[in-house]
Amino acid sequence: MEQEKLICTGCKKEYPYDRIFPRCDDCSEPLELNIVHHNSLHKNSTIDKDVSVYNQNIIRKFAPFYSLSCIEDKLSLGEGFTPLIVADKLPPILDIDSLYLKNETVNPTWSFKDRGTFVSLQHAKSLGYKTIGTVSSGNMAASVAAYGARANLETFILLSADIPLEKIQPVLIYNPTLIKVKGDYGKLYYESLKIGREIGIYFLNSDIPFRIEGSKSISFEICEQLNYNVPDYVVIPTSSGGNARGIIKGFMEYHKQGIIDHLPGFICVQLEGCAPIYQAWKNGEEKISAISAPEAIDNAITNPYPPSGNELLRKLKMYNGIVATVSDKEALEGQLLLAKEGIFAQPAAAVSILAIKRMRSRGIINKKDKCVAIITGSGLKYTGILNKHNFASETCTLKELKGKIASIIKK
Amino acid sequence: MEQEKLICTGCKKEYPYDRIFPRCDDCSEPLELNIVHHNSLHKNSTIDKDVSVYNQNIIRKFAPFYSLSCIEDKLSLGEGFTPLIVADKLPPILDIDSLYLKNETVNPTWSFKDRGTFVSLQHAKSLGYKTIGTVSSGNMAASVAAYGARANLETFILLSADIPLEKIQPVLIYNPTLIKVKGDYGKLYYESLKIGREIGIYFLNSDIPFRIEGSKSISFEICEQLNYNVPDYVVIPTSSGGNARGIIKGFMEYHKQGIIDHLPGFICVQLEGCAPIYQAWKNGEEKISAISAPEAIDNAITNPYPPSGNELLRKLKMYNGIVATVSDKEALEGQLLLAKEGIFAQPAAAVSILAIKRMRSRGIINKKDKCVAIITGSGLKYTGILNKHNFASETCTLKELKGKIASIIKK
Repeated sequence: MEQEKLICTGCKKEYPYDRIFPRCDDCSEPLELNIVHHNSLHKNSTIDKDVSVYNQNIIRKFAPFYSLSCIEDKLSLGEGFTPLIVADKLPPILDIDSLYLKNETVNPTWSFKDRGTFVSLQHAKSLGYKTIGTVSSGNMAASVAAYGARANLETFILLSADIPLEKIQPVLIYNPTLIKVKGDYGKLYYESLKIGREIGIYFLNSDIPFRIEGSKSISFEICEQLNYNVPDYVVIPTSSGGNARGIIKGFMEYHKQGIIDHLPGFICVQLEGCAPIYQAWKNGEEKISAISAPEAIDNAITNPYPPSGNELLRKLKMYNGIVATVSDKEALEGQLLLAKEGIFAQPAAAVSILAIKRMRSRGIINKKDKCVAIITGSGLKYTGILNKHNFASETCTLKELKGKIASIIKK
Repeated sequence: MEQEKLICTGCKKEYPYDRIFPRCDDCSEPLELNIVHHNSLHKNSTIDKDVSVYNQNIIRKFAPFYSLSCIEDKLSLGEGFTPLIVADKLPPILDIDSLYLKNETVNPTWSFKDRGTFVSLQHAKSLGYKTIGTVSSGNMAASVAAYGARANLETFILLSADIPLEKIQPVLIYNPTLIKVKGDYGKLYYESLKIGREIGIYFLNSDIPFRIEGSKSISFEICEQLNYNVPDYVVIPTSSGGNARGIIKGFMEYHKQGIIDHLPGFICVQLEGCAPIYQAWKNGEEKISAISAPEAIDNAITNPYPPSGNELLRKLKMYNGIVATVSDKEALEGQLLLAKEGIFAQPAAAVSILAIKRMRSRGIINKKDKCVAIITGSGLKYTGILNKHNFASETCTLKELKGKIASIIKK
């Protein structure tokens, strides 16, 4: 087998497999793992159907697409293997024939991040690292803290000093070392990587190569769940750009191996109040510009200077991808629409829904197109926002209850 | 095949399969579905290993043990098929050799309730009901509201009038009809069933027969995940008694069919501040007495007059089951211990851990015994309680960060 290596997504410079600094020394663009060609792979041989899903993990299941031959299975918390729900009520609302919801909210820490954390952690462990870290106060922080605890690694969570401690109690429960850092939060991403390289901490930040490797399993699963009928569009809430890169890479690898015969269309979705990738894409620019004063409803999708922005622009250009935006109001509307299907997503995870509606109304998506929306994280992650909805309730006494119900029930 | 019917767990009176009132007209005890004997079943034929888990549901997977031959697959949200995590750090702390964690927090609404809701809903739909309901402000309310939305059924959620609306926003997101009922909350369980029978609403309350049928899939999965090596103990947080009944029934059905050669020991766990089942069990009584002033840390395990209490006492007596209690403090300690394994559970779901420790220290559990703890619901369900933990954090500037990390990192 050809040796795996890391390649700069910008200038194509090569780096060894055991490098943890995830960006190019020359051009600063993110690195990614090269694709090893498997001559004899086809869909019937790649996927281990005999092994019960809940006794394996994504690396074992999709082994030919992972270079980590010597993994520690016990670090798995059962990430991945999430349901692909056939939407029932949304298609007529969005004026499309079929919509699938890839429900990432049922991961071990209730977001897609667990896939990338699990795979990155294997890389970190295989290289002998005893300390990991990340820069996040949200889904990624919870994921890294949980898996760090599971793996018995010292775990640093770095976040902005202005975040109240109570907001991150669901991260602190896993007992990481949490450091609130005063100063420019945007610089913290790069500073952490630098410190990590200098003193030997593997920072599992949002778009490191092995996080991308984790995210690509989302695509592998979608392919299997759709019986290898490629959807017309995959719609991805996009913040740092890491998850979108992984999902695109997954489909690309399956295509290259002939497991699927074409690629889906890719639609990345951002919130209007913080849409640096959309701005650059719309203006045909090759590089993103930082958003100076982001104002959007959910931090999970509010990266003002996405570290994988430029690479995502390149990939979207190569595959005719689209970037869409929705308003905060539409994100909340998407949240209510998803709940009609029985899925409670955080606003950041619900942006895909109204983006599909917008793309459909502009004729970019056709009525017959089969769309898959990636539902990235649980609504329980951000219950504070629920005050924005106007929920109603009734009140009565126990004695009045029967009459009350009888007056409400639909005949 | 012999016709399925409902049988009173108390006086054994028989009722037809299509009855929705879940209790006996004569003795008021809960009903349960009879077990149809399958002469030719053995473990290799019962479980469909070829079908990818994420393209099926628990009824399809364990079809011979479900009477619902004509189900609506599309009502599934992917409930069940939860990971069985091998505990890594807890065994030495609890002084046992092996512990498994059945992680029910990754269900579609993040608790075990989804299994029973899905199965009950199939019964309701097959009988033509257009309206469902439940009495709950917690996990069951969220589950019923979600599946009711999914199934496009009018859904009534009844709860106590003193619960603030903001606490139940994660239920309201699914748009049920929510009625706050003033008066004795304990009576609401029975009143709702009565109203349901009178005006044709299927109330999916905590211990109805088809919820029990849902819970039994937990046992089937554990058996498969342990390769049919029966654990020595299954440890179950117990409130209404419904889930414990289902888990016991599941093992019993597998045993009766010869799929497993003996039953595990069953340990039900309650909180000291509300332990009606424990009190009756300890005193050798046949009936539970209501707790007049329950005071415990998590409502999800605080039923002062559990509707399946008497039946659970009977079953525990029959199988030499045990009831244990832990304190609120121990529940919180259990929460921290589970987080060491990477699982963030609500306190109610964490009671099993310290119960195992107590049973071990008393010599009831032996060091070599293999225990399975059922982790019933996500810690995100009850983040308010996290203030009880003393979480620490560090603060520094971006410039100081490297020095700060270097001073903390373990050499």
